[in-house]
Amino acid sequence: MRRVLLTVGYDGTRYGGWQRQLNALSIQQVLEEALSASCGHPVTVTGASRTDSGVHAAGQRAHFDTTCAIPADKIPFAVNTRLPRDVRVTQGMDVSSAFHARFLASEKTYTYRMAVGVHASALWHRTHLHVIPPLDISRMERAMTQLLGRHDFCAFQAAGGTAKTTERIITDASLTTEGSFLTFRIRGNAFLYNMVRIIVGTLLEIGRGKRDEDAFQQAFLTKNRLVLGVTAPPHGLELTDVCYPDAAFLQPEQIRWHQDTPSSRRTP
Amino acid sequence: MRRVLLTVGYDGTRYGGWQRQLNALSIQQVLEEALSASCGHPVTVTGASRTDSGVHAAGQRAHFDTTCAIPADKIPFAVNTRLPRDVRVTQGMDVSSAFHARFLASEKTYTYRMAVGVHASALWHRTHLHVIPPLDISRMERAMTQLLGRHDFCAFQAAGGTAKTTERIITDASLTTEGSFLTFRIRGNAFLYNMVRIIVGTLLEIGRGKRDEDAFQQAFLTKNRLVLGVTAPPHGLELTDVCYPDAAFLQPEQIRWHQDTPSSRRTP
Repeated sequence: MRRVLLTVGYDGTRYGGWQRQLNALSIQQVLEEALSASCGHPVTVTGASRTDSGVHAAGQRAHFDTTCAIPADKIPFAVNTRLPRDVRVTQGMDVSSAFHARFLASEKTYTYRMAVGVHASALWHRTHLHVIPPLDISRMERAMTQLLGRHDFCAFQAAGGTAKTTERIITDASLTTEGSFLTFRIRGNAFLYNMVRIIVGTLLEIGRGKRDEDAFQQAFLTKNRLVLGVTAPPHGLELTDVCYPDAAFLQPEQIRWHQDTPSSRRTP
Repeated sequence: MRRVLLTVGYDGTRYGGWQRQLNALSIQQVLEEALSASCGHPVTVTGASRTDSGVHAAGQRAHFDTTCAIPADKIPFAVNTRLPRDVRVTQGMDVSSAFHARFLASEKTYTYRMAVGVHASALWHRTHLHVIPPLDISRMERAMTQLLGRHDFCAFQAAGGTAKTTERIITDASLTTEGSFLTFRIRGNAFLYNMVRIIVGTLLEIGRGKRDEDAFQQAFLTKNRLVLGVTAPPHGLELTDVCYPDAAFLQPEQIRWHQDTPSSRRTP
């Protein structure tokens, strides 16, 4: 048995989200069916992030165990022929049997795309939120800087979150404009349920002057969801990248060695 | 009766092109049906460009005549409620009864989008051509400069073109890269049937080293379609903008005055 890590991209429009469910088609289901057919045995995948219905991905990661002999870098070619065009495996690599796509993820990057204009965009309505001007971009940029660093984001989650702790570290947040398109990008060690969409919804209300510029600061202090804006819709969101520390790729026996402190090493 | 000029955007994926036809749904048809319902009488639209099946638009222009009383700048709001999400009217303005969206167009801009990677993009497969690396971008950029200026583009058209002359003026051509995305943009006074897609197909063969860097020059000299590359597929192409000279917006009586030379003016 070997463990393989995949990079997966998808257009989430047609899907009920990443996770397998009874009442909707999921990315996990179409990926597992294609992998099972390619590998010749039933396959279960574990994703780095359980993206919501309608959310897209460029760099979702997922691991699975297999007995098949296909070299890891050839798995994308094998499985892509069996996948619909809106799901694509873009990378495959062998990892240690101790690797875990979700538990070992050390950093995630999300992108939220907006098309600013009086009328909606016909071409980009699947991937960009339609936002009606005016928006005060510099107000949004000043507010964004409050997100950087280590904070208790407990006000930044929807009901149904299962996180044990709500402290998170945001390492980067940026807003770029190109013509009538506005792109928000955020990177952090982990994100709570709906956290990015709540941040975007709040930023838009700040940009429209409907919420104070220090709303994020207020939310850290009061831990009150109500000082933040509405949850932005899913179709503007993309899981862009998932990173792992180098140690995540070590073999189990190497990991044991790494975790041992000198004092705990057994003498031979 | 008044004449109104619209700016129209569409995702061409679901359509058989701009022009009304028997066997496929066209942009013209859905637009005419929505406008007829909004205006309360049958409407026929005349587009600036008869884009092919699968080609997109951000700035297609189309004029129509109406007796309705809706102010021109409110027509987009009225008609968009009746249009599918992949077709949007983004602007409406009153024009002279002598205005013509196709005959008076003085400049058009097209964009061709590509996603470069070993595997296709799941999220952008409707709007970007998948291109497998390697590509020599600087080779493509050097070749592109040959397009600029006034040339006889008769080798650059597919069978079925109806143009009387094949001389065209290209005023701008650029290639921009952002991450794994490659965007080709071209502006000119007019374009022959499939001309942009033939240019892109040729540029890609030049980038792969499969065609000489001076292929465009050879085509101008030999007028031979065979020295150019394949026609690139439609889904990467977008009609981005259509421009008109200021004089196109004059009233008929003003146009007559403009066309008169001093010697031909009748004495009162």
